[in-house]
Amino acid sequence: MSSQDLRAVTWTAATEGDGTPSLSLIDQTALPHALERLDVTTVDQLIDAIVRLVVRGAPAIGAAGGYGVALAMAQGEREGWDRARLDAEVARVRAARPTAVNLMVCVDRVAPLIDAGPAAVLAEADAIVREDLEANHAMGAFGADWLQKRIAVSGSGDRPLRILTHCNTGALATAGWGTALGVIRELHGRGRLETVYADETRPLLQGARLTAWELAQEGIPHFVQADGAAAGTILRGEVDAAIVGADRIAANGDTANKVGTVGIALACAYAGIPFMVAAPTTTVDLATATGADIHIELRGEAEILEWAGVRTAPAASRGHNPAFDVTPASLVTALVTERGVLEVGAGETPADGLS
Amino acid sequence: MSSQDLRAVTWTAATEGDGTPSLSLIDQTALPHALERLDVTTVDQLIDAIVRLVVRGAPAIGAAGGYGVALAMAQGEREGWDRARLDAEVARVRAARPTAVNLMVCVDRVAPLIDAGPAAVLAEADAIVREDLEANHAMGAFGADWLQKRIAVSGSGDRPLRILTHCNTGALATAGWGTALGVIRELHGRGRLETVYADETRPLLQGARLTAWELAQEGIPHFVQADGAAAGTILRGEVDAAIVGADRIAANGDTANKVGTVGIALACAYAGIPFMVAAPTTTVDLATATGADIHIELRGEAEILEWAGVRTAPAASRGHNPAFDVTPASLVTALVTERGVLEVGAGETPADGLS
Repeated sequence: MSSQDLRAVTWTAATEGDGTPSLSLIDQTALPHALERLDVTTVDQLIDAIVRLVVRGAPAIGAAGGYGVALAMAQGEREGWDRARLDAEVARVRAARPTAVNLMVCVDRVAPLIDAGPAAVLAEADAIVREDLEANHAMGAFGADWLQKRIAVSGSGDRPLRILTHCNTGALATAGWGTALGVIRELHGRGRLETVYADETRPLLQGARLTAWELAQEGIPHFVQADGAAAGTILRGEVDAAIVGADRIAANGDTANKVGTVGIALACAYAGIPFMVAAPTTTVDLATATGADIHIELRGEAEILEWAGVRTAPAASRGHNPAFDVTPASLVTALVTERGVLEVGAGETPADGLS
Repeated sequence: MSSQDLRAVTWTAATEGDGTPSLSLIDQTALPHALERLDVTTVDQLIDAIVRLVVRGAPAIGAAGGYGVALAMAQGEREGWDRARLDAEVARVRAARPTAVNLMVCVDRVAPLIDAGPAAVLAEADAIVREDLEANHAMGAFGADWLQKRIAVSGSGDRPLRILTHCNTGALATAGWGTALGVIRELHGRGRLETVYADETRPLLQGARLTAWELAQEGIPHFVQADGAAAGTILRGEVDAAIVGADRIAANGDTANKVGTVGIALACAYAGIPFMVAAPTTTVDLATATGADIHIELRGEAEILEWAGVRTAPAASRGHNPAFDVTPASLVTALVTERGVLEVGAGETPADGLS
């Protein structure tokens, strides 16, 4: 299966059998062992799927949120909800996870069309997916251009690059293709990728399970490594650049992304190599002034204290499980969006460059 | 069980039954679920135990190496080895793991006594253990003194501290008490410890399994967190200082320690909090000029690609598994040994301060 065929979130107008419309999600908790889809038909099922990370990745959650409005309308139609109930259910979808801004943005974009009817709502949700896919291809090209130029300028010539990435930012995390992984795919397509270091990304192993799976699908050479190995791999000179996605980018360029990201940014700064953030402009939240204003989701302790349901830590231990961290803007060498590259660390802020 | 009773490595003059002397090791692969001992009577068994991390931690491996000479002598006596064979077996023990200098140092200290007989060899191995225990208590006091003074000087008063640590550096990793965890125990004993953030320490979870177990045994409040959470926890101001152990310290102060350490050091430097290394002087290798000369052990890929024997990454993925990384001397705020504190980041090198 190529990334072109891989759609984490797809709308089905009517499931076979009962004619109920559904949202079909690749069950990302089952990968890499099985490629299964989960069809959800109710708001409760959708929220559960978002919370359990059946669907994850800021842009993919955004797409699920857009279709979630259509799902709520269909459920309301079946169950005879009044408008207040429908609005409340849409608000629940919007609040399913707190850190990624895309979910809120996409729900807020689609919900005003409820009065225009299901077809208008679906058309808007489809547009979100189409635009995200286009944005990913655009940022892949911008990011690859910038990196090839930067590495060549640094005196290394236009040679294949060794790229470190964290978490999963590929087709599974988006409408398709990917953000950070889209830049990596683009470099590979140009014959300018030597290898990828994929951090395993504890606690839920999105790197080892999902990024490695996407890379393996396309035959892209890669190593999986412990998250703690990232800084040393960078400091030993084994990496030319790190590329990560984002869950929310503040107006000043501070970037919230999967826990473990800021340590990579610190290592890149120390080693003098580029730290690139690739995200669509929908991930930029100009209403958030700085990273200090970003709410960091604290997830359950069991994700840290257990493995596959078996306790690994002592019974008396507590777990500390922030799902994200914030990378200061000064450490973000380049922010790539579908509009181009902002050199945030050099002072080009989203507030100036994207508003 | 208190840390005073916890001896990871103990010599038994004769096992019950057959009268063969043995080295008794706490099986650290079985913790925290079971406290079991493994009695080894041959060089092959000892090397296997070191490689499988039944016994681990630089000072504990050193102690095992010292007793390993006595073990080889006893096996040679039983099996009729000549001196060349005995020397070769001792050399195998010495090379069982490459990064921690303590193993080589301890074997080299005990081996010259082979001609003086088993009693002399055992006495020297016992002395290594006794001295390590004394050194741990001394560095615990020095480290706690320095931290309390530093935090008070920074304007925070002499309040209980929030300490981040990585891997296991406690009684299990040493002859008893601990290095970094010895400083933490000392702060706790003084009523100056609020809580500990214990990185889980992938891939083998020495933090979640062993450090958390030691802390739980003594009722010390602690959180287990993903290694990737360390930098964010530090940058959000949730930590007052990080304390780690070391596997080898070069003459200039560059420090090899468990993979994931240098990322913590970078975060401490960025946040302006102390990054402390606690290790006995036996861990300092003045013959190694800088960290660039330290051989970093690359361990098997399965530790990264599997969990409890079940593959987590795709079949096509490769694993990159460096067991250690090197923290540049400039990032080591304080190096605590049994002789006192060297402010390495401020220019006090082991070469000047310990030779």
